[in-house]
Amino acid sequence: MRFFITGCAGFIGSNLTDRLLRDGHEVVGYDNFSTGQQRFLEIAHHSTRFKLVHGDTLNLDSLTSAIQDADFVFHLAANADVRFGTEHPRKDLEQNIIATFNVLEAMRANDIRLIAFASTGSVYGEPQIFPTMEDAPFPVQTSLYGASKLAGEGLIQAYCEGFGFQGYIFRFVSILGERYTHGHVFDFYKSLCANPHELHVLGNGHQRKSYLHIEDCLDAMLLAVEKAHDKVNLFNLGLDEYCEVNDSIGWITQHLGLAPKVIYAGGERGWIGDNPFIYLDCAKIRAMGWQPKLTIKESVIKTVEFLQNNKWVYEERK
Amino acid sequence: MRFFITGCAGFIGSNLTDRLLRDGHEVVGYDNFSTGQQRFLEIAHHSTRFKLVHGDTLNLDSLTSAIQDADFVFHLAANADVRFGTEHPRKDLEQNIIATFNVLEAMRANDIRLIAFASTGSVYGEPQIFPTMEDAPFPVQTSLYGASKLAGEGLIQAYCEGFGFQGYIFRFVSILGERYTHGHVFDFYKSLCANPHELHVLGNGHQRKSYLHIEDCLDAMLLAVEKAHDKVNLFNLGLDEYCEVNDSIGWITQHLGLAPKVIYAGGERGWIGDNPFIYLDCAKIRAMGWQPKLTIKESVIKTVEFLQNNKWVYEERK
Repeated sequence: MRFFITGCAGFIGSNLTDRLLRDGHEVVGYDNFSTGQQRFLEIAHHSTRFKLVHGDTLNLDSLTSAIQDADFVFHLAANADVRFGTEHPRKDLEQNIIATFNVLEAMRANDIRLIAFASTGSVYGEPQIFPTMEDAPFPVQTSLYGASKLAGEGLIQAYCEGFGFQGYIFRFVSILGERYTHGHVFDFYKSLCANPHELHVLGNGHQRKSYLHIEDCLDAMLLAVEKAHDKVNLFNLGLDEYCEVNDSIGWITQHLGLAPKVIYAGGERGWIGDNPFIYLDCAKIRAMGWQPKLTIKESVIKTVEFLQNNKWVYEERK
Repeated sequence: MRFFITGCAGFIGSNLTDRLLRDGHEVVGYDNFSTGQQRFLEIAHHSTRFKLVHGDTLNLDSLTSAIQDADFVFHLAANADVRFGTEHPRKDLEQNIIATFNVLEAMRANDIRLIAFASTGSVYGEPQIFPTMEDAPFPVQTSLYGASKLAGEGLIQAYCEGFGFQGYIFRFVSILGERYTHGHVFDFYKSLCANPHELHVLGNGHQRKSYLHIEDCLDAMLLAVEKAHDKVNLFNLGLDEYCEVNDSIGWITQHLGLAPKVIYAGGERGWIGDNPFIYLDCAKIRAMGWQPKLTIKESVIKTVEFLQNNKWVYEERK
């Protein structure tokens, strides 16, 4: 099959690109390299079945042209920055809502109707029910990131109903693993490299979050695409466990052989709109036969190992 | 208080403008007159407390300037056309999502934090539970209109959390009454004027919908704004009854003394994305003390009377 991947040079996009090429598919990757990394595409570039298009999802003409021969679209390009939404709200509007609209319009212009979308557990806002199911009570949004991803979901669903599209919407917990470039493991590791004796933590360290390794995430997405055939296919993707930020700090510092003084900013939330508890019910994707292979602890440590072996990721980073 | 109303020349906007002026408030109305009518503002223009600004919600500079002295914003401007979403999807993106974002940004620039928003029962997609409560299971969108209004809701909620806004979100059923300018009563009346012997109906006539009269709708909105003080205040607004399209046809033709041959297009839905059953649970607003005064039948007849007395509304209409 011919896949089109927006955000192909990102964390999830580049791993998906490699996986699809390994499985024998053709991939046209699309990225504006605002956060994507050319080095994440080094393996992909060895394949003659890979084609890279430099382009922005806000450029509808470029997108419509690049997408034209695709059978299936993975729309992963996004402003994935949950934390700094209030510093630049337009980013979420443009990169998550308008960009998704453009992808849908580019598909429609080319009569392509299969789309998978990287959404987020943040669309549940601060749920009252844990683990949180896909049909949890209608949530109230608490972050611009969540709101913009929910808007993207809604547009895709409307195109499924209105234009005969088939959609796969994945609500992720935080993804960890090779090519991970932002989030708490990144921040903590970078901070400990600079000063191994002290670690500043947002919130009180008791925020409970769930995580998933990128390879388990790819397994789940590809399984869903293969086996689920509803008009709109919605899946939570996460592990049946969660940890406290403090647990993660323990694993990271133990792995690095460090014993820093941990200094908490305090409060239940790390930042405005931070969700103190994320834990998704993933029974639906498990019922399709998905079995994740790595625990949160293993994923955290693999992520630290990746950062240790790829210092350029955080040293060169803008 | 000083109110700013986007879409002040529209059906709901002009009625709200008149009501607020009658209650002694100041109103700055904002409209681009794409569907709004100058004649709906005839009463408002008699008041020295009314100021009209011709402007588009897509023009952020104009909006930011016009909104500046407001205490409270009613954001009613929208593409309210549920039915033709698939003919011009960009309209819902621009007029319902980007416009809402612009209103929020204009407010933020002027340190205004109180906003009420006209959303819709269409955000519930095709619910499984009737009457449908505000916290119904997380819906899947079935129309571009619903998706775009949900996106607007999400943005407002995120601004409430991120920027200390206070939001009032009203999920309407279809509103009827004076200055009503589109929907099935409009279509049927216009069609019967042209040919009193035949009436073409989309769907099978068994679509069940709920309606609310504009004056009852204004009562509910103003009561909620007065009495509800959460960060995000979400209310369904509708009657505790619904009717079939066929019921409405009966009331209209009886009122007009006509007995047309009714020809059905057939099918459960009037158009793609049409919802065959809309019936909202409005216990939350009723618990605040709201009591609607008119039944659906009375509202339908009052609407026909308005159209009979204001032929210009459908004769001049583009």
